[in-house]
Parts: sequence; structure tokens; C-alpha cells
Amino acid sequence: MSSKYSESGVDIDAAAAALKGIGNLIRSTWGREVLSEVGNFGGLFEISSKYREPVLVSSVDGVGTKLRVAFISGRHDTVGEDLVNHCVNDILVQGAEPLFFLDYFGCGRLERGIIEDVVKGLARGCKANGCALIGGETAEMPGFYADGEYDLAGSIVGVVERGSLIDGGRITEGDSVWAFPSAGLHTNGYSLARKIIFEDAGLGVDDDIPGTGRSVADNLLEVHRSYLPEIRVLRKLVDIRGLAHITGGGLLDNIPRILPDRCSVEIERQKWDTPPLFSYLGDKGGVDDEEMHRVFNMGIGMIMIIPASDEKKLVTEGLRWKPFPVGTVIKGERKVVLK
Amino acid sequence: MSSKYSESGVDIDAAAAALKGIGNLIRSTWGREVLSEVGNFGGLFEISSKYREPVLVSSVDGVGTKLRVAFISGRHDTVGEDLVNHCVNDILVQGAEPLFFLDYFGCGRLERGIIEDVVKGLARGCKANGCALIGGETAEMPGFYADGEYDLAGSIVGVVERGSLIDGGRITEGDSVWAFPSAGLHTNGYSLARKIIFEDAGLGVDDDIPGTGRSVADNLLEVHRSYLPEIRVLRKLVDIRGLAHITGGGLLDNIPRILPDRCSVEIERQKWDTPPLFSYLGDKGGVDDEEMHRVFNMGIGMIMIIPASDEKKLVTEGLRWKPFPVGTVIKGERKVVLK
Repeated sequence: MSSKYSESGVDIDAAAAALKGIGNLIRSTWGREVLSEVGNFGGLFEISSKYREPVLVSSVDGVGTKLRVAFISGRHDTVGEDLVNHCVNDILVQGAEPLFFLDYFGCGRLERGIIEDVVKGLARGCKANGCALIGGETAEMPGFYADGEYDLAGSIVGVVERGSLIDGGRITEGDSVWAFPSAGLHTNGYSLARKIIFEDAGLGVDDDIPGTGRSVADNLLEVHRSYLPEIRVLRKLVDIRGLAHITGGGLLDNIPRILPDRCSVEIERQKWDTPPLFSYLGDKGGVDDEEMHRVFNMGIGMIMIIPASDEKKLVTEGLRWKPFPVGTVIKGERKVVLK
Repeated sequence: MSSKYSESGVDIDAAAAALKGIGNLIRSTWGREVLSEVGNFGGLFEISSKYREPVLVSSVDGVGTKLRVAFISGRHDTVGEDLVNHCVNDILVQGAEPLFFLDYFGCGRLERGIIEDVVKGLARGCKANGCALIGGETAEMPGFYADGEYDLAGSIVGVVERGSLIDGGRITEGDSVWAFPSAGLHTNGYSLARKIIFEDAGLGVDDDIPGTGRSVADNLLEVHRSYLPEIRVLRKLVDIRGLAHITGGGLLDNIPRILPDRCSVEIERQKWDTPPLFSYLGDKGGVDDEEMHRVFNMGIGMIMIIPASDEKKLVTEGLRWKPFPVGTVIKGERKVVLK
């Protein structure tokens, strides 16, 4: 068949070949709740009948310009995990357990190795979080993306009993503010970080970032952490009144999203050391302290607010990432005060 | 504040201003089931307790290169509706009613007018289908997209009782095959259509496409139809054994997705006239008949398979888009035979 369609830049058969290898990766994330097969129009997921008043919690996100680090280093097998973990945290802060995930991959031309690596990362992240990769769209759009480049977005659906929703509404003056350590930049601040590292400092992906003992690629591709296992354990021990995922906007903009009126949060900045990567970015880029705390996570991936009286119940042994106290809820107008 | 971040190409304040106007558009799609507010980490949606064995049905899609027609004509307020309707149909074919939708908008720099228009289309589509626009991600990624360009994807979640799933499994020889008329190309075949119209024929967006009596822009931006209202009515009248959404791959590749082993479908091609837009594309592009039926929908947006004995129960009065008979299920190996 002389294919006019392939002349227009889209080759359906070549795309099908590029996608052939990923079916098993996708199925590896499925439990018994998944009723559909790869190739169905929609993914089917049966909700457990154990929920009495189930509320679905859903979020959508992209990887952002962290993708460009994947492009220039040729490492495409972790950005999918970044995306899944980011989305898991976004619904976790409302108390939800993940059910399933769907991804969108847009590119100019499908390249088999790249799409397989991206799906590897998605599947790894989904499995680790007990989340089924139930659907995906792989769009070949000639002229929209440069050769070898792509965009990657995804959405997650989770569930929580209505009575177990975490919404910050019960946060009150005197509550204790705890922080979970992040790993690198997670998925925020990459446009500025890339400008400082590649343009201002003129480093290449394989060069070491001074003070970190690791290469640019290793630093910038560190995987966004999921705090699901930690929160699962801790919410059985203490009354978690609020959780804030530290994404774009940093500590300064994300904590206020869960604060009730008349509450602010005071963060004692000396409670943790700024990781060397952030110190390097601030120094080299001449970025002032406030902007650093708005653009970057500064070493904190998740904030947890609990009653001060519950502090003694916090057992962090066995957790991969241990939370530590960083501040207090004070009277105020939904602000973060860095002290 | 001297913003280093805006020098890197991302201006958080400008982006916030561009997004300010769309909150009301988004809220206009919400019913009582939506428990969250704009700006929450995740969207909250309460599932009605009326379901006994609820199965969630989910799908993700993009608009594809139809977006380029929006770019060159400067009309951005319908592509969102295309996307919602496409997704609604994708879960409708498994019997699901839509619950909520999330969109992903990726661009180089947020432009207020464009994002508002895109969300207008999303909101219009969501409202028409009774679907809540519960979340969205607007990603500003300098260098990923050309000025004024963007990518738009979205995912939908719907629900169906397990016993009411439509999966094609009961389709049998002798069943009757019906078709719902499409409006234009829906969202498939745009790379080839644009090549034929803009490159081969050298037309501009405001030129008429011969035989259609309408401009290129009007033809190519016709909104993808949702068949939800039609199927809602008809499934009360007849036993719908299978539904196929005619998307990329056309009648030839989409109908087999729902056929059981040992069934094929014979389509009597003289049962409907090829709309003038498709005739023009085939003639001007020199595209053979088989490829036309694989790349384009050829005037059919949805295929419905019912028992022949139910034909007399099909009352199509009052429907916006009336189905008509186009063929029969025959013995075979999951193929479509054009007669």
C-alpha cells in the first residue's frame, strides 16, 4: 500500500511497532481491579465495595522542563516515575490512596527506545505506589515537537472515604509543622536551574556540580519522591490535620493552600541544612533568599501538620524518609514566615 | 522583587494573571458532587451511592494536529470541546456516563486570550455532557513549543454498573450494524488533510473547499460530536451489544476492536454518501479508497451493533443525529469488509 499518510509525517504501522513492546510493562502494574485490556477504548477499574462514602480525588500534571535534562543526557527512564510520584503526592495530601494513572505522551515522531524507556519509568512508579497504569495516549504530531523531544503529562485517580479527607480545616494555632526531605529539585524550578547551570555556569550534563559530588545529570534527574508509604504509616499514629506537597511556588506558596483563615506558619529555617545543590544554585545564580524558597523546594518535599500533643506519638523508625520538626502554626493571614 | 525566574522564561505572576479569568468557567461545570475548590492539590468528586458495583471507565486523549488549524485561523474556543467530546465517546462505547474531566495545556508562554478561549471550549463541552471540569495543569515550558502554539490533552473518568458494561462480547452473526453521522474530520487525519489542503492544493484558511460551500477553517474546525445523548436514549429501547468510536484507524481499524472471535462486519458502502470534504481530500490527494477509510471517518462518527430483531424498536425521532443501517455482522476473523 502506498501510504499517503506516512508522507504527511505520520506512519501508523511504524508507530504500532514502536508501541508493541510496552504492553507487558503496562500490564505489570495491574491488579484484579483492572477489567480492561490494552487497546480498549477506555480503561476499566472496579472500585472496591469496602468504601461507604467514596470520594474520588484526581489530579493532572506534567514533568515540565525537567524533560530537557532527560533529552540532553539521553536518560528517559526516570521522568515517568517523577510524574507518577508527583501525582501520587498531589492526591495523598487530601488523604487519598491511588487507584489508577493515565499518561499522555506527545512527540513529533515516535522513537521506540524513548517511548519504551518513558513507559518503564511510568510502570516502575505505578507499581511502587500500587497504582494501575490503565490508559495512555501516544500522540505523533509532526512539527509540534523538535526531533527527539516530547512532552509527558499524566493524571491520577485515587479514592478516600469522605470522613477521612484531609483538608487542613482543623489546623489550629500551636500545631506542629513537620517536613519530609526531598531528593533534588523534584519537578520544579527547572527552567531557572537549567539557566544557572548550563548558561551562567556553562556546565555540561556530565560535569560535577561543585559541593554535591555528583554530575549535573545525576543531580537534576533525581527522582521526585512519593511519600505515600510514610503517610500511610504515620496517619495511623497521629492526627494528620494538613499535608502540603511542595511543588511550584515552594514552601511559601504551597503551605498557605491548606491553611484556614487566621492561621499562618512559622518555619525555623535553621532546623535543616540547605542541600548543596540549592546553595550552589542560589550563589551561582545570585537568586535572593525569598525567590529561592518560592522557586525551589529547598530540601523539603512534603509538609505535615499535626497537633503538638501528637508529637510524642510520631515513631519514624523504619520509614525511608523521616520527617523532622520545622515550625509551628501561629496566628496570621495564611502566610509562611521564614525565621 | 527582581525575578531571576522570569529571566529564565517563566514568570509566575504573569502566569497567575493569565489564569485568573478561568476560575468561573471551570466552576460553571460543577454539580454538587464536586467537593473541592479551584486551587486544591486534587479535585474531589463524590460518587453517588446509587451504584451497586461501580466500574470506573477512564480514557486520555489529545486534540492532535487539529490544533494547527486553530493556530493558523486564530480560533481557540472549539478545540477544548473537541477533546471533551472525543473522550466522552471513548468511555461511552463501554457504557459509561462521564463524571469528570481534567485537562493538560502545555505551551511556551501563557497567553491570556488563548488559554481563556481553550478553557471556554472545555467548559462548553463539559457542561453539554454533564461532566465536571475538576482539574487542569497549565504548563509554561519555554523552548518546548513555538510562540502562540500549545498542546492540549485531557482525561475523563466515568462510571458504569458492572452489569451494564458494553464490551462487544455478545455480538453475533446476523446482528445489525448502524452508523451515526460525524461532523467533518472529528479529530483524526489532520496531518494528511493539512498536507493535501495547504501544501498540495495551496489553499488558505479562508478559502472555500470546493464542493463544501464552506471555508477551510469552518470545515476543519467542525466540532467532534458527542453521541452521549443519543446513546442514552437508544440503550433504553434496544440491546446495544457493541459501540465503536471511529477515531484514528477509521472504520477499518476501530470496529474490529469490539468484535469477538469469528465475527467480522460487512459494511455496505452505498448506504451513505461520502461527505464532499472527504471526496475532495481523496481526489486532490490521490489517496486510495482503503487508506481513506483508515485515515478518515468518512462521515461516520460512531458504530452501533444491535440484534437484527431490535431494529424495529429503534425510534430515532427527536435525536440530534439519527443512526442509519450500514451493514451486518458476518462470520469472519475480526475484519471489516467494505462492499
